[in-house]
Amino acid sequence: MDDTASLTRTLLRPRFCETDQMGIVHHANYLIYFEAARVEWLRRRGVDFAEWSRRGINVAVVEASVQYRSAAFFDDHLIIETRLLELRSASIRFGYRLLRGDTLIAEGGTRLAWVNAERKLQRIPNDIRVTLSTPERPDEIASRPARV
Amino acid sequence: MDDTASLTRTLLRPRFCETDQMGIVHHANYLIYFEAARVEWLRRRGVDFAEWSRRGINVAVVEASVQYRSAAFFDDHLIIETRLLELRSASIRFGYRLLRGDTLIAEGGTRLAWVNAERKLQRIPNDIRVTLSTPERPDEIASRPARV
Amino acid sequence: MDDTASLTRTLLRPRFCETDQMGIVHHANYLIYFEAARVEWLRRRGVDFAEWSRRGINVAVVEASVQYRSAAFFDDHLIIETRLLELRSASIRFGYRLLRGDTLIAEGGTRLAWVNAERKLQRIPNDIRVTLSTPERPDEIASRPARV
Amino acid sequence: MDDTASLTRTLLRPRFCETDQMGIVHHANYLIYFEAARVEWLRRRGVDFAEWSRRGINVAVVEASVQYRSAAFFDDHLIIETRLLELRSASIRFGYRLLRGDTLIAEGGTRLAWVNAERKLQRIPNDIRVTLSTPERPDEIASRPARV
Repeated sequence: MDDTASLTRTLLRPRFCETDQMGIVHHANYLIYFEAARVEWLRRRGVDFAEWSRRGINVAVVEASVQYRSAAFFDDHLIIETRLLELRSASIRFGYRLLRGDTLIAEGGTRLAWVNAERKLQRIPNDIRVTLSTPERPDEIASRPARV
Repeated sequence: MDDTASLTRTLLRPRFCETDQMGIVHHANYLIYFEAARVEWLRRRGVDFAEWSRRGINVAVVEASVQYRSAAFFDDHLIIETRLLELRSASIRFGYRLLRGDTLIAEGGTRLAWVNAERKLQRIPNDIRVTLSTPERPDEIASRPARV
Repeated sequence: MDDTASLTRTLLRPRFCETDQMGIVHHANYLIYFEAARVEWLRRRGVDFAEWSRRGINVAVVEASVQYRSAAFFDDHLIIETRLLELRSASIRFGYRLLRGDTLIAEGGTRLAWVNAERKLQRIPNDIRVTLSTPERPDEIASRPARV
Repeated sequence: MDDTASLTRTLLRPRFCETDQMGIVHHANYLIYFEAARVEWLRRRGVDFAEWSRRGINVAVVEASVQYRSAAFFDDHLIIETRLLELRSASIRFGYRLLRGDTLIAEGGTRLAWVNAERKLQRIPNDIRVTLSTPERPDEIASRPARV
């Protein structure tokens, strides 16, 4: 998949409540950061979550992994690089890199599957496949990375 | 309201992820602890949440307050004393005291309102008023306070 | 206290993980939103949290309250209006209004106290009293409300 | 590693605030559940977290992964089976299975590393290696799985 089309960069500043008594961002928050970055990735390609909801589109996280490389701290300026790495018939895989300047804080990935109410796999609708292959819309990109 | 009927004591041990970089339990978690204690209060009086859900019973938190008296720490043995303080036609108020031994950690209260899908106030159904006035069921109480 | 000096407006978009099975933002998150808005309020007046930490400045939340007026939803554009309402010798009180357009979602307040390691009240240092009485710095304000 | 020595089973009931608008437990909470189960695993082998803290023992999560198999719901009776799968010189790996009755909800793993203040790997002290190879202490096990 074309890297230029699939990349979105977003800014994130850890909240005070996301730290733990070791003085660093607690490791469970990274899955929350990845989700926020993924929402922004989709929004910049024109995804309307309310419309997905009306159409009964149900996307489930089926796998997640994180490799923690370096600690993150309260109020850090972190950049999340989100890429769509794989587009299958019923699932997609995103990859994430979390950076503070040149320091790699964490890497990770999540697989999301299109499922019906009984959690059975569904084909991704064609119009959504097109959306997922689209680069960011210029009018959705701020001059500096949008905050998530 | 009769204090014996309205009191439930539950045990809670703060999770590591609930601490912050000051080394104490982050203050936003207390509303979560109060909710967990309230769920246990209701469960010990026979409330079946799945049945409430089927009946479309919708209970909204409309007010919450906490007074923080002393810090709590990871893995503390905390006791929450939960009392129903007020039973009105469309809302109820719970009071909470969070203790570590004799040390008062926090006090607080929440008001919950029966609302329909448009968030309009509804009368509390009679069978639920009866349930709310009931003491804990003996078969629902462990010899030591149940963990939430 | 002069309202112009004490007001900061920030943008907040609820995360997916902050919703609950009632389909709305879970009520405990509002204390987290208030904290994020307070951090932004302080940052726009030049507060350097790393410096506070080096000086051993320890600010504890001693009271919090929320009145919930209307539900908030995933991805809403919410504005938080944060005001310093009271500046005492050892504590301050912030007030918050959370809005979606003209709809008031919630109001609330928190009292924060300057405490030492034994949680005894301390006088707020003079330079910090000055900072707390200062309006937002022009160079810290974006043309649209900063995201928290 | 001997499975009997390395297994601990704990009970967990998802909190209301841990659900999301899809009506299920939000996927980021599973890392929190795994951590709570790991704390209980260590406690039942006599680990004193306050003593670890005094000795400056610093254990960092360096990898985490979750495979989501089936949805979990508010107030479910979930059992977490936690096993120590690997004991290296400077790190350990735990595996987790989350079950509701016979239904596998999720599986996962975390690697934890002994690090110093500069996040450099440290040998695991010998007394801790012994502790980690020990089965649960009978006096720490309740007749039914302890709640986390």
